[in-house]
Amino acid sequence: MSNHDHAGEESTDFRPKFSTDGLLTAVVSETGTGLPLMVAHMNADALEMTLKTGQAHFWSRSRQELWHKGATSGNVLVIDTIRTDCDQDAVWMTVTVQGDGTACHTGRKSCFYRDMLRDETGTISLSPPIDSQL
Amino acid sequence: MSNHDHAGEESTDFRPKFSTDGLLTAVVSETGTGLPLMVAHMNADALEMTLKTGQAHFWSRSRQELWHKGATSGNVLVIDTIRTDCDQDAVWMTVTVQGDGTACHTGRKSCFYRDMLRDETGTISLSPPIDSQL
Repeated sequence: MSNHDHAGEESTDFRPKFSTDGLLTAVVSETGTGLPLMVAHMNADALEMTLKTGQAHFWSRSRQELWHKGATSGNVLVIDTIRTDCDQDAVWMTVTVQGDGTACHTGRKSCFYRDMLRDETGTISLSPPIDSQL
Repeated sequence: MSNHDHAGEESTDFRPKFSTDGLLTAVVSETGTGLPLMVAHMNADALEMTLKTGQAHFWSRSRQELWHKGATSGNVLVIDTIRTDCDQDAVWMTVTVQGDGTACHTGRKSCFYRDMLRDETGTISLSPPIDSQL
């Protein structure tokens, strides 16, 4: 461990390192299994609402609005743990998915349903969608 | 599942959605346990080197250079699975950490060693570092 506190690494002060767009990276995995679910972003409001309600809120970059995940689908992400990292530019939540248990808008449990592949020529492709995860 | 393929959601073509800085978000959890380890970024070169070598490479935004994680510490991240998400702007790796098994430069196994807390006045703070994880 370093002897000095670079950018609040040892501090209990929350000093978020927002991007130039005012965002933190927000990662979501499933409580218990650790299954990857999704990656999105939070602005200060989304973080505040997440901590206040215990349900994941994000900032939708495409719609440019606060996004209460699951508000319409019922697939709310209930926070079990929420942590930040050493340099405080990311948030990692472990959650229990409500509703039908799918976190991805494509109807899958996880957004991470395709393996990345590289052939001998260096071309990168993806596997067909893996619909059964874990 | 949607009937149309928004931004390559059902495709096996790799069509990465890089940020304006040319980066993808890169998330790392531990194989088997699903323990959160770290979040960083990859440019095209870092991704290529990761897929070619089977060891995680990132783009260091602070140093503005390709970063072969563990090259000096010995704590190389050996890729077990590597997937992209529905909109192809993030990469999620499950890894086995070599060397002394720590993924965080602070000497901890994980970068996510502090819980986020919110008191009744709405002030956000962090727990003291949790050095024993899992």
